[in-house]
Order: sequence, then structure tokens, then C-alpha cells
Amino acid sequence: MTVLETLIKQFSKLPGIGKKSASRIVYFLLNKDKIFLEKIAEQIVLLKEKTLQCPVCGNYTEVVPCSICSDPRRDRSTICVVEQSQDISIIESTREYSGLYHVLMGLISPINGIGPEKLLVGQLINRVKKGNVKELIIATNPSVEGDTTALYISKVLKELEIKISRLASGIPVGGDLEYAGRLTLARSLKGRIPL
Amino acid sequence: MTVLETLIKQFSKLPGIGKKSASRIVYFLLNKDKIFLEKIAEQIVLLKEKTLQCPVCGNYTEVVPCSICSDPRRDRSTICVVEQSQDISIIESTREYSGLYHVLMGLISPINGIGPEKLLVGQLINRVKKGNVKELIIATNPSVEGDTTALYISKVLKELEIKISRLASGIPVGGDLEYAGRLTLARSLKGRIPL
Repeated sequence: MTVLETLIKQFSKLPGIGKKSASRIVYFLLNKDKIFLEKIAEQIVLLKEKTLQCPVCGNYTEVVPCSICSDPRRDRSTICVVEQSQDISIIESTREYSGLYHVLMGLISPINGIGPEKLLVGQLINRVKKGNVKELIIATNPSVEGDTTALYISKVLKELEIKISRLASGIPVGGDLEYAGRLTLARSLKGRIPL
Repeated sequence: MTVLETLIKQFSKLPGIGKKSASRIVYFLLNKDKIFLEKIAEQIVLLKEKTLQCPVCGNYTEVVPCSICSDPRRDRSTICVVEQSQDISIIESTREYSGLYHVLMGLISPINGIGPEKLLVGQLINRVKKGNVKELIIATNPSVEGDTTALYISKVLKELEIKISRLASGIPVGGDLEYAGRLTLARSLKGRIPL
């Protein structure tokens, strides 16, 4: 197998990339200069080496603790709980949140044998118990696993007197009632906002 | 900028990959083992080094001449003319063609200042003039540039007595008359096949 063929095969293993897209990408790379290819290859090798997990919040970072945990301007009394590290950059992009984060590294999923002990739930409980935290915003997906995880965390932390909330679920902005699913509509009714 | 961020930026430069897909791919890579990453990086670096262009047909190859040009079982009297190297593997996948190929490395496009002298058209003419070639199948896309290129080649080679044909253009298999464009329909009428 030639390098060209091997690379097409490798690229088609990446998420969202089929054989045709992989082929298109590899031919594109072939027309790029050597420096571009060497840079991208170097970064791929460095990726795992350089990327650490923040021991405080679980976010991927190159410095410990991560830039969010060590930022003095962030509100340290609020923690937003997310499933995975990449969710942080999505929430950050809204510019609506200035608290800290906690990455669970997954969701509770009894069907897949994933209990809270396999996630960073214990670390979250410790963080909250250490004090100073006044509010917890659970930003897990509105799925069975996301709901279960949110419910579990709110139950475990019930005795501590902190505000616990969950991201609102409903019709997406620009969406259409007609195309919203039954469950989405039910949630948006339940979570209706007084005007 | 962290390696993670740099790599997301690099991947989003690839064709068909936006910022979100790039991010998904990089986080996927982060969860792969080191060997997978090192292998993919190595292949990227090797790509330009190992991949040559066949001096006979212009196909990308690691051996010279390429495996198609040197295959004694292929019909050496027929040449299929394609725009780019990747078109060869697409035509090969039909298993309907057993002749040779010729890659033009582009199409004639006066609007972009690309004349036949910038393509491997001269090499094609030489190949045909050397004799033995009885048929030329022009497999350029049914676009303005593809049509122009096909017409140019057929004109230049008119004096030599060889069969020159072009891939049929019409309604795709599984397609619908209703959704076929006006030009596609016009071509499929013009190229109608007696039953």
C-alpha cells in the first residue's frame, strides 16, 4: 500500500470523515508545501505529550492549573459542570459565563456500565465541600445520560446549601415549533419563562 | 496558542472541514494512543517525499512507471484522459475499464489564464502520435472547462485516425427527471441511446 493509500485509510478513521472526504484531504495535502505537512505532523506528535489534564477542573491544558482555574478575574463561587473538555470552549464562546468549570470526563450510563465512580464526580463533590462554591450549573446534554448525571449530582449535593441549576432545554433560537420534537416541546413548556 | 488549538486551526484549513469538525477530530486524536498519532504524522511527512508522478501518464505513484502503465494485462490501445490523478481511482473502482490513463493536471480555463500549454496536453499528443493508440476516452467533468478541454483535444487530434469519445452525461442512476437540471436533461436527450 502506498503512503497515499495508507493516509487515506488513516484519515477515513477520523470522526465525520468518510472515504471520499479522506481522499480529498490527502490529495489536498499532496499539493501543499513540505513545511505545511511537517508542521501539522509535528503538532500531531506533540498533541498527547503537551496536553495535560488540569488537576483542579479536568480541563485539557498545557499549564497546571489551567488558565481558567488560575484566572483571578473569574468568579470562584460558581462551577459549571460539563461532560467533556471541549464543552468548555463552546460555553466560553458565548461570553455569558465567567465562573469556573468541572469536567466529568463522561456521563453516568448504567447501560454501558459507567457509574459515578468512573467519572470525576468524586472530585467535584470534594471541590464543592471545600467551601466557597455557591452555585453549580449542570451543563450536561439533555439526553438520558445527561439527565441521569444531573439528577445524581443534585441528589448527592442536596445537603450542602448551594444553588444547583441545569441549562434550559427547549426550542433552539431560529427553530420552529413545527419541527421541534415532542420531548423538546414538553421541556420548553415545563421550563416556560414568565414575561 | 496550545498544540490543541494550533492543531484545530490547522485541521480547519483542510477541504470540507470546518472549525467544529476540526475540533471534533483533534479531541478524537487526543484520546487515541501515541502509536496511532505517530503513524499518521509519519505518513504525512512521507507523503510528498514518496509520491512521484508517473512520467508516462501523470498518475501519482511510488514506482516509475506507475502500476497501471507497467501492467501487461492492460489494453495499451486505449487511453482514458482525466483531469486529475484522483479521477483514476474513481474510474478504476467501476471495474469497467482496462486501458491506460492520461492525467491532464487540470483543465483548460481561459478565464483563469490556463491554456493547454500549462497542462499535460502536449505529452498526450506525443503519446498518441507514437502510435498504437486506437481510442481516446475523454473523461473530463461535464462543465464549461471540461467541455472546452475535451473539444480542444479532439480538434488537435482530428487528423490522426483514432476514435475519440467522451463520457456520457445525463441523469444519474437513481436520479429523478423532476430534479435533473435543464442542461442535464438537454444532454441526456441529445445523447439518447437506441433500445
